[in-house]
Amino acid sequence: MARWEGGAPDRLRAAAIDLFATRGFDATTVADIAAAAGLTERTFFRHYIDKREVLFQGQDVFEQAFVDGLYDTDSDDPMAMVRGALAGAGAWFDDERRPTSRTRQLVIDANEGLRERERLKLGTLAERLADALAHRGVDPASAVLAAETGMAVFHTAFVTWIAEGETRSFTEVLDDVLSRLRNLAAG
Amino acid sequence: MARWEGGAPDRLRAAAIDLFATRGFDATTVADIAAAAGLTERTFFRHYIDKREVLFQGQDVFEQAFVDGLYDTDSDDPMAMVRGALAGAGAWFDDERRPTSRTRQLVIDANEGLRERERLKLGTLAERLADALAHRGVDPASAVLAAETGMAVFHTAFVTWIAEGETRSFTEVLDDVLSRLRNLAAG
Repeated sequence: MARWEGGAPDRLRAAAIDLFATRGFDATTVADIAAAAGLTERTFFRHYIDKREVLFQGQDVFEQAFVDGLYDTDSDDPMAMVRGALAGAGAWFDDERRPTSRTRQLVIDANEGLRERERLKLGTLAERLADALAHRGVDPASAVLAAETGMAVFHTAFVTWIAEGETRSFTEVLDDVLSRLRNLAAG
Repeated sequence: MARWEGGAPDRLRAAAIDLFATRGFDATTVADIAAAAGLTERTFFRHYIDKREVLFQGQDVFEQAFVDGLYDTDSDDPMAMVRGALAGAGAWFDDERRPTSRTRQLVIDANEGLRERERLKLGTLAERLADALAHRGVDPASAVLAAETGMAVFHTAFVTWIAEGETRSFTEVLDDVLSRLRNLAAG
C-alpha cells in the first residue's frame, strides 16, 4: 500500500489504480476505492462521475498540451509541428510519473472496454491535431495523415517509455522514434 | 429503398445500413431491420448477434487479408510489407462497394459507441500486423511503429477513397498517401 499524498482527487486516483491493478477493474467498487483512500463515497462522486473516469480525467488539459505544443512550434513543416505537439505533452511524462503511467496502462490493456475508451480518446486527439495543422496552413489530406502518424509515434514512444528498465526521458524516446520513422518511411 | 440481392445476411446488412443512415443507429431495432429485409427476427439472429455486429461482422476475414498481404510481400523492408498488407485489404474496396462503405462510415462516425468499437478493431489489427512484422524479422520497436503508421496510412487512404467525387481506386489512393508520408517524414 502506497502512502497517499496530496488532495482527495489524487488520493482517490492512487487508491483506484492500486486496486484496479491488484484486484482487477471490474472487481473494484467505488466503495472499495473510497475506503482504501480513507474517504467517503460521497467525496468520490464529488470528484469523479464513475470509476472509469478516474483513469481518464484530465484528458482536456492533456489534449490542450498537445495543441499548445503544436501552435508554439515556429516551423511550418507538418512533422515539426507534430513533434512540437508530442513534446508539449511530454512535459506530463516525467520520471516521477513513470511507475503510475505503467500501472495505469496495464489496467487499461487488461480490459476491453477501457482499451476502446483509450483508442477513442487518441482518435479524438488526432482529429484535434489535424484541425490545428489545417488551421496552420497544411492541406487537409496531409493534416490528417500527419496527425494520425503523430498518434502512431506517440503510442510507440509511450509504450517504449513505460517499458521496464527504460531510463531515457520521454523526449529522448520521442526523438528516437521520429528518427526511426524517417528511416522506415524512406524504405 | 434499394433492391435486395444475395442471401439473407447480405439483405439484412443492406437493410440495416439503410435504416441506420436514415433513422439513426439507436432508433433502429432488429425488428425494423428484419421487416425491411422481408425476413424474420429469428433469421436475423441466425446470422448476427445484435444490430451492432451487422456493421463489424467479417472482421476476421478482413484482418486476414492484411496479414496475408504482409506475408505475400517479397521485400523484407518494413514499410514495403505494410504496403503489401494495406494493398491486400484493398481488394475489398472496389468501386461497387464504395457507396456502402461511405454510408457505413457515416453511421459509425455519428455514434460514439460505434466509433470506439471501430478504433478498437483498428488497434487490434495494428497489434496483429506488428506481430507479423516481428515474425518476419523486424525489431519489435520498429514493428510497432511501422504497424501503427500503417494504420494511420490506412485510415487516411480510406477516408480519401470514400470522399464524395473521389474516383481513383483504393490502391491508387494508397500509393499517393504513402508517397505523401515519405515527404512528410523527410521534413
